[in-house]
Amino acid sequence: MTYQQLYENILAKKSFLCIGLDPEISKIPNRFKHMDHPIFEFNKEIIDATAEYAVAYKPNSAFYEVFGAQGWNELEMTVTYIRKRHPGLFVILDAKRCDIGNTARMYARAFFETLDFDAITLSPYMGHDSVKPFLDHKGKWAIILAATSNDSAQDFELAGEEPLYAKVLNKAMQWGNLDNTMFVVGATRPEMFKSIRELCPDHFFLVPGVGAQGGTVSDVVKYGMNSHCGLLVNSSRGIIYAGEGDDFAKASAAAAKAMADEMAASLDARGLLKK
Amino acid sequence: MTYQQLYENILAKKSFLCIGLDPEISKIPNRFKHMDHPIFEFNKEIIDATAEYAVAYKPNSAFYEVFGAQGWNELEMTVTYIRKRHPGLFVILDAKRCDIGNTARMYARAFFETLDFDAITLSPYMGHDSVKPFLDHKGKWAIILAATSNDSAQDFELAGEEPLYAKVLNKAMQWGNLDNTMFVVGATRPEMFKSIRELCPDHFFLVPGVGAQGGTVSDVVKYGMNSHCGLLVNSSRGIIYAGEGDDFAKASAAAAKAMADEMAASLDARGLLKK
Repeated sequence: MTYQQLYENILAKKSFLCIGLDPEISKIPNRFKHMDHPIFEFNKEIIDATAEYAVAYKPNSAFYEVFGAQGWNELEMTVTYIRKRHPGLFVILDAKRCDIGNTARMYARAFFETLDFDAITLSPYMGHDSVKPFLDHKGKWAIILAATSNDSAQDFELAGEEPLYAKVLNKAMQWGNLDNTMFVVGATRPEMFKSIRELCPDHFFLVPGVGAQGGTVSDVVKYGMNSHCGLLVNSSRGIIYAGEGDDFAKASAAAAKAMADEMAASLDARGLLKK
Repeated sequence: MTYQQLYENILAKKSFLCIGLDPEISKIPNRFKHMDHPIFEFNKEIIDATAEYAVAYKPNSAFYEVFGAQGWNELEMTVTYIRKRHPGLFVILDAKRCDIGNTARMYARAFFETLDFDAITLSPYMGHDSVKPFLDHKGKWAIILAATSNDSAQDFELAGEEPLYAKVLNKAMQWGNLDNTMFVVGATRPEMFKSIRELCPDHFFLVPGVGAQGGTVSDVVKYGMNSHCGLLVNSSRGIIYAGEGDDFAKASAAAAKAMADEMAASLDARGLLKK
């Protein structure tokens, strides 16, 4: 998917919502727990209920790897299901991989060939070597950690006169282009969001930290929206655990719709829907 | 496994060799390729041939994930086999995971409970949050990237007046202790190895970059060995692809033995074997 296609999908759906599929067996409704593929079956209902409000889904590999080979199988079933039943969605593996060229090439094959993801999140600690093999896959994206939403981003990312996240943005913007590179910028520090957008005016940002972690859509829009929207705002727990019991999917749909409505209003307020 | 137990295993085997299990289907002997579990069967022969010369094995998750659920299954078979047939070995998953607390807890369960690894490699980009959940598992280890062996370590790790690797060492030494924390320090920059050992005199280092990448055991020993050895030196391709055809395992054993002999001599030269 290209930058322009992603933007057009956002305009068509009037939403820049990404839904994080991080299901924990202890938190999903009881009726799934004795199925052969509980995580996949839960995901399927969430996806069917929310797909009209979302442009992207983002499974997090940890929540599948905890079940070993079975979890990996359910991850594959999930991405295959999205592809077949809801074509056109942008599907991200939140994997934050980080390894040298030889190994990064294997990860790129694992997630772009063995599994059919559009994008993968990456930790840039090891530098260009560890990102380039992902950029070599045409139509696929590297989503590079810049300033994350967690408290201990203070330890390294935000520390120093020229903080690490700024060094990462300045260098990594040169590695790829707008069609294959995105950055992770957390929603929990709105004042910083503004300066990051100044540093990096055109790229898409994947934005975690809205909802449970305290960030708001309105702050992200205020400081981060650009002329092509430039935002994918993620919500995981706030949507997939919005309800309990038999009506859980309805509650998830309502939570996703509420976020999408706010997003539609913000796209409209920026004049992007009139074009 | 504790720091002391790891040191005693090194003395007993007169080796601090870690063997990287990064098998590529295109590089393993043909006879494995049509087996049900080619990667596991290849690993099994490598392990049986080399276990007397090694104290640790280190599968890299990318080389299993490229095969999807099947690869994950062979990874599990590999660690289970090591546990059963060669108890006492230190088994590391080279996974370089990097995520916030909630997700890091799932990774820790995936690799310390679902799979029975002793240690996992981690990228410290996101700070303390992303490491702590691994330290909460008693007897298990976090192996944190500090200064890696790849060229583009220059991009961030080695850049700046106080380089990122030094910030990581200074902070991360406070998070855990000698019994649960190790650092990755590449063998390709011997002059830097000396200053890292001064900064961090007691911890174990996991050392990649010997062999194919150009580092040598003698430099690593000269600048990095401490009173408890403090080194696990990794070789992957140099051992697992030492030979071809039916004799491949013999060639791997010979390559592992050659490294172990050099290690035994260096332990002896330091007077550690006499204690």
